[in-house]
Amino acid sequence: MIGEEPSKIRTHAAAEHDFVVRALRAVDVSESDARDVADVLLAADLRGVESHGIARLDTFYVRRIEAGVVNARPMYTVLSETATQYALDAGNGLGHPAGIAAMRATVDKARATGIAFGTVRNSNHYGIAAYYAMMALDHGLIGMSMTNSTHLAVPTFGRQKTQGTNPIAVAVPAGEHAPFVLDMATTGVTFGRLEVSDRKGKPLKRGWAVDAEGRETVDPATAMTSGALLPLGGYGTGTGGHKGYGLGALVEILCGVLAGGLFGTGLRLDERGLHGGNVSNFFGAFDPGALRDPGDFARDLADELRTFESSAPVDGVERVAVAGEPERVFTERYRREGVPIDPKVWEGIDTMAERLGIEPLERFTVA
Amino acid sequence: MIGEEPSKIRTHAAAEHDFVVRALRAVDVSESDARDVADVLLAADLRGVESHGIARLDTFYVRRIEAGVVNARPMYTVLSETATQYALDAGNGLGHPAGIAAMRATVDKARATGIAFGTVRNSNHYGIAAYYAMMALDHGLIGMSMTNSTHLAVPTFGRQKTQGTNPIAVAVPAGEHAPFVLDMATTGVTFGRLEVSDRKGKPLKRGWAVDAEGRETVDPATAMTSGALLPLGGYGTGTGGHKGYGLGALVEILCGVLAGGLFGTGLRLDERGLHGGNVSNFFGAFDPGALRDPGDFARDLADELRTFESSAPVDGVERVAVAGEPERVFTERYRREGVPIDPKVWEGIDTMAERLGIEPLERFTVA
Repeated sequence: MIGEEPSKIRTHAAAEHDFVVRALRAVDVSESDARDVADVLLAADLRGVESHGIARLDTFYVRRIEAGVVNARPMYTVLSETATQYALDAGNGLGHPAGIAAMRATVDKARATGIAFGTVRNSNHYGIAAYYAMMALDHGLIGMSMTNSTHLAVPTFGRQKTQGTNPIAVAVPAGEHAPFVLDMATTGVTFGRLEVSDRKGKPLKRGWAVDAEGRETVDPATAMTSGALLPLGGYGTGTGGHKGYGLGALVEILCGVLAGGLFGTGLRLDERGLHGGNVSNFFGAFDPGALRDPGDFARDLADELRTFESSAPVDGVERVAVAGEPERVFTERYRREGVPIDPKVWEGIDTMAERLGIEPLERFTVA
Repeated sequence: MIGEEPSKIRTHAAAEHDFVVRALRAVDVSESDARDVADVLLAADLRGVESHGIARLDTFYVRRIEAGVVNARPMYTVLSETATQYALDAGNGLGHPAGIAAMRATVDKARATGIAFGTVRNSNHYGIAAYYAMMALDHGLIGMSMTNSTHLAVPTFGRQKTQGTNPIAVAVPAGEHAPFVLDMATTGVTFGRLEVSDRKGKPLKRGWAVDAEGRETVDPATAMTSGALLPLGGYGTGTGGHKGYGLGALVEILCGVLAGGLFGTGLRLDERGLHGGNVSNFFGAFDPGALRDPGDFARDLADELRTFESSAPVDGVERVAVAGEPERVFTERYRREGVPIDPKVWEGIDTMAERLGIEPLERFTVA
């Protein structure tokens, strides 16, 4: 979890990738699909987004396949396809291979036409949204990715959960400069932040969560049991909570409704249970080179990003960052120093490896 | 200003439209361009967004034309055009006609190809972003509009202004149901909210603004003079301020950088001065019918919006709203009861009418 001291028990990136593939192969996932999942989970762990990495391998993916609620060998159906659009039904398979397939199709179309979008329905949790948006970068395209998710958040002035943390990711290539990569939940914080506060016995920040009556609460236990998350911007409209709610609702619309998947009260996901399916995604790609010389665009964007980076910081902060930079720094560091995995997550991984009859994940300890 | 009691001195919508056209004709704007501006300003006043309506006619548009910093008769240049993309240089003309021209081209292309986007550079303040996004609705398309603006906000952990209030608007048609219309500044509040607090002698809410050192302040005078606005989500990263900053930066990129206009330290707009030009916009349109039967999409979206509307509200609130609903209610009411115009704005309008030698705007008083 970002903000916590990383675990000293590490593994190498290549070892983690190989382990994820072996675990999924053990429950009959194809080699190609298993590699897709491993790519996305490893990217999350490298980027410091531990909540979306190998920590979820057993509970979200392996167990759901074992329980028969996620198909290890799904049949994909292309629902519609034009020169600029692509709609996929993922056959209740794993979310990562379906997301990669749809984003790949979207990128291919955008390379030909300048802009394209794609949807996936009847899929499952696809990991970090940034992964798919960043697939566009290698082709010099701007990429976009969104997904609906378990309903954990109230609308503004509401007390019932009507939308998820519903992330939006956008990646923009910047030539010689590192790309701009925004990947944000449309809630103020994710559920994981409540769990961290609970574990540490710390009160929540105002603007994070409400109780069962929809009133602000700073009690982690209340928020996690009978309460709900607040949209980005906090309670009511005073600090812009209606904007976060609007963005979250937009993601519901562009994913569930536009993909022809489930939405509203029909979308009953339960991240802590064994339910599968029902997740929908939205992808987009477009070519800045269709409007401007790509070299000029990259040069100008690098200038713009350096403008942010070189602007004066507040006291006690070294430098202003741009979106995607902290995750890039983590990635470089963890590739070098090993991927930190939380002791509790190690326990789960070891138990799972034993259950599946595969070799455990190699580890080493740093000072 | 939303939240304040509307002025009892009113005018009729048709009279306001006619007055705006006459004022702009008096400074040599073409009939067609003047009508475009009037359409957008009237839409803002009807939607209850008084800060972006006729209140700005004199200072933002008429005076800037008189001072020669905005061209009354601009020469447009199409910088590039493909089946899915359109890039316009607005010749430093008024922002509204240029925005309407670019969004119209974007919509036409999206009707043919399914999806398209457009940019405008070298333009001026274009009013409410929602207007352009909503142009797509008549064609059954999803519309999107963004603009960069005067740099008024600090980045997360910064103390220098690096981006504007940079609004994002998205409009989605919902068949029999009113459309979903999100129009949000990517800052917590706009500068106008600071002015209202100052006028009323009330402290700001935390999360709205910082002082010259980038520290949170609740003093309106400090925020308005040496300070700056905070991104949506407030100070630092604790309540998601980095997300609002990321969205604001994304708008800078998709407008100034992608349009090939000004950005970064090159973008020196001053809303209170007489500077013109330099504004860039981004537009998008796409057809849900390319992916799904349009009737099914509209029916499902109406269902989804009703799910939000019928979810349980907090105590003391009648009903949960969806994006665009408050503005639609204002529009229906003000069309019926007359458009409220603030007494101070009336003064400015009357002085301007006298200066331009045009008939004053008709008014009436409600009980």
